[in-house]
Amino acid sequence: MNSTNRKKVIIVGGGFGGMHAARSLRRADVEVTIIDRRNFHLFQPLLYQVATGGLSPANIAAPIRSIFRRQKNAKVLLGEVVAVDPKQKTVEVHCTEPGELETQKLTLSYDWLIVAAGATHSYFGNDQWENIAPGLKTLEDAAEIRRRVLAAFEAAEIEPDSKHRDELLTFVVVGGGPTGVELSGAISELSRHTLLHDFRNINPELAKVILVEGQDRVLATFAPSLSHKAEASLKKIGVDMQLSAYVTSILPDRVTLKFKSDGSEKTIATRTVLWAAGVAGVPLGKQLANATGVSVTRGGRVPIQGDLTIDGHPAIFVIGDLASCEGKDSQPLPGVAQVAIQQGSYVGRSIKLQLKGKSNPKPFRYSDKGSLATIGRSMAIADLGFLKFSGFFAWMLWLFVHIATLAAFSNRVLVFFQWAGNYLTYNRSARLITNTERIGRESCESEK
Amino acid sequence: MNSTNRKKVIIVGGGFGGMHAARSLRRADVEVTIIDRRNFHLFQPLLYQVATGGLSPANIAAPIRSIFRRQKNAKVLLGEVVAVDPKQKTVEVHCTEPGELETQKLTLSYDWLIVAAGATHSYFGNDQWENIAPGLKTLEDAAEIRRRVLAAFEAAEIEPDSKHRDELLTFVVVGGGPTGVELSGAISELSRHTLLHDFRNINPELAKVILVEGQDRVLATFAPSLSHKAEASLKKIGVDMQLSAYVTSILPDRVTLKFKSDGSEKTIATRTVLWAAGVAGVPLGKQLANATGVSVTRGGRVPIQGDLTIDGHPAIFVIGDLASCEGKDSQPLPGVAQVAIQQGSYVGRSIKLQLKGKSNPKPFRYSDKGSLATIGRSMAIADLGFLKFSGFFAWMLWLFVHIATLAAFSNRVLVFFQWAGNYLTYNRSARLITNTERIGRESCESEK
Repeated sequence: MNSTNRKKVIIVGGGFGGMHAARSLRRADVEVTIIDRRNFHLFQPLLYQVATGGLSPANIAAPIRSIFRRQKNAKVLLGEVVAVDPKQKTVEVHCTEPGELETQKLTLSYDWLIVAAGATHSYFGNDQWENIAPGLKTLEDAAEIRRRVLAAFEAAEIEPDSKHRDELLTFVVVGGGPTGVELSGAISELSRHTLLHDFRNINPELAKVILVEGQDRVLATFAPSLSHKAEASLKKIGVDMQLSAYVTSILPDRVTLKFKSDGSEKTIATRTVLWAAGVAGVPLGKQLANATGVSVTRGGRVPIQGDLTIDGHPAIFVIGDLASCEGKDSQPLPGVAQVAIQQGSYVGRSIKLQLKGKSNPKPFRYSDKGSLATIGRSMAIADLGFLKFSGFFAWMLWLFVHIATLAAFSNRVLVFFQWAGNYLTYNRSARLITNTERIGRESCESEK
Repeated sequence: MNSTNRKKVIIVGGGFGGMHAARSLRRADVEVTIIDRRNFHLFQPLLYQVATGGLSPANIAAPIRSIFRRQKNAKVLLGEVVAVDPKQKTVEVHCTEPGELETQKLTLSYDWLIVAAGATHSYFGNDQWENIAPGLKTLEDAAEIRRRVLAAFEAAEIEPDSKHRDELLTFVVVGGGPTGVELSGAISELSRHTLLHDFRNINPELAKVILVEGQDRVLATFAPSLSHKAEASLKKIGVDMQLSAYVTSILPDRVTLKFKSDGSEKTIATRTVLWAAGVAGVPLGKQLANATGVSVTRGGRVPIQGDLTIDGHPAIFVIGDLASCEGKDSQPLPGVAQVAIQQGSYVGRSIKLQLKGKSNPKPFRYSDKGSLATIGRSMAIADLGFLKFSGFFAWMLWLFVHIATLAAFSNRVLVFFQWAGNYLTYNRSARLITNTERIGRESCESEK
């Protein structure tokens, strides 16, 4: 890597936080390096659309290099940061070559480090559930969920045993936050509309979609009135909600729930369980916390100060889903794109002030612009603080905000057309079962 | 499966041949079952666009079930036909359940069998080359090629050693037929235009794309004048052609060629080799030939008679890439969509005549509507028999024919917009490196 006299900013992660931090430094006299394990920025709020065949992966992902091609002070590195050394002010990066022949190990030094590496699924200590109940964080997760859901209908079509067929046509989504609500709504629509005429032996309409939530209402971060509207809509499109219930066991052919109220248990026979219940900071968070002498929270997040740095380490910022940051009422900030975006811009501003010899006088404050969640075709809920509403107009707002935010990408026009087409026809043309072959082949190879 | 008194037609393979055979039987009083290992029909002529990031998989694939949802006499089965029993008139199908828990084995009986199972890569007995030099037959292949090509640029960006960097920036495409020409042209354009401003340490324009062809000209099935126009265009966009040369060895870091003229050898240091040199009938062809007492050709194809049935087995048709069929000048018919489509319709007609107690009086005759091949942006060659031309108008014709043929799918509008966008901006927004994570995870699991 070429070296200059300019100060070096390393950004770990090309998600919403990292991207906005880099962007806000575009005119600063620094050398910015964005490091990500993937070569694309992923628009995670729409990942459930890929998982249910509504959109293609490329519709919601943009190559990080093309986002920064015109920002001359930024370079992009495809690799995984495995460790931070706060004393030496370096990070260790592992880059895997094509064909996985060799791993190139690099040590890069920084003047400022922005860690925006995000979160991954958390199974609350039950990691054995991961293989049975995949979560939805990456494009590969989305393809895997799409494969499992579609393959379950295919298997039901040829299943002679009616009990087993019912198992195959039962889908359990664990977690009633935005992802769980969107996913269960989309699967229900898939079975009731898109697949309606596709099969000859089964009636996809009879598929059961069960949404399990530990709290007494779905979308618990919204106002109760909106949660109840969402529940009514979910019920209308055929989603069965099991509230105040938590999962005690997940096996390949069944899930067991326990109800908080009376401790009673219920077993659901199913072949498809999807996990939308919990996330935790990526493992790098733990390494970073250890190296800087702080302790991660229960959710694997790194505690930070008002200026978003780690206590005692003014050159290390942590932002986005990996940061444990409190809002005005001492509540932890939600893990949403808006928080990461605002933190990214704040950190960029702080570094620019420091370059001028000043310090950022104001601690970070999250300005909540409102929340949106979609339930299905024509139905969403919106909480703008001063105004709460639901229904078609909330859905239009949700659509508009998402397409406008995708403007950073080149493919918003395509998404709009795909959506318009899907809306008019109930079609989900991207419902492909892929990766079955290659994965099989790779697995065989590794057994040799 | 429900049974009726209607005669049963089983179609193995939902490609061009199988799809058109099923379609031509839509008003016939038969029960049609289309069996395919994948849940989608793939528009293979555009697969190279997915491999080079120009299109998304869903743009060139359509769920087979949605193609046949309105054809009430057709049902679709997701599974692999592993054997045909011509005496019992049955096929054995293996269907894998979601989560690969169990394989369901079905035996289905037929009155007529149409085998349209297609072809796969052939490494001419050098199967050890497959892992180093992937071919381009499936969506997974396309994603793998896309991953390797993009990952090579990423690795070159961080490679300090200039010799190794040159290896990473050298791409070898083996086979100068339409696929090899399209692929090498697209990789060259990717490096010279799309990626031009994306990197900081390397100049993607310096990437070398080498096309190796055994005959003395590329696109040897076209007229020599068109081949030479194609060669001039390839040279102009930076593709280095090695003609009259065949590959004698492929290793992870180099390829050795031998020239037919003087037997001299040449070694090219490269990390990315793509195989577009040969195809052969799928393994089912061999089982079918054995069971019916015929011998497959050297290319693994099943020899058929003028009525497209196997000698002595009037109820078994073989069509498309798996069939060895001679044209009017005793030349084997080319492995293109047009042949499969016309054969599919011919077989449908034959069965309808037999239902009326007649036999099809005329043997199959291929009506060649002309050939098209594209080399790159604005450049294609067209051979319509009575008219041969090349350049921008050939490219427009190529674009028009492909978008019109995609009309069977719902997504031709999307493809048109994506293409228009790509053309205007040189962008290839689908250049995602995916599947790295999940494949790694699956491989680990299978080692346990």
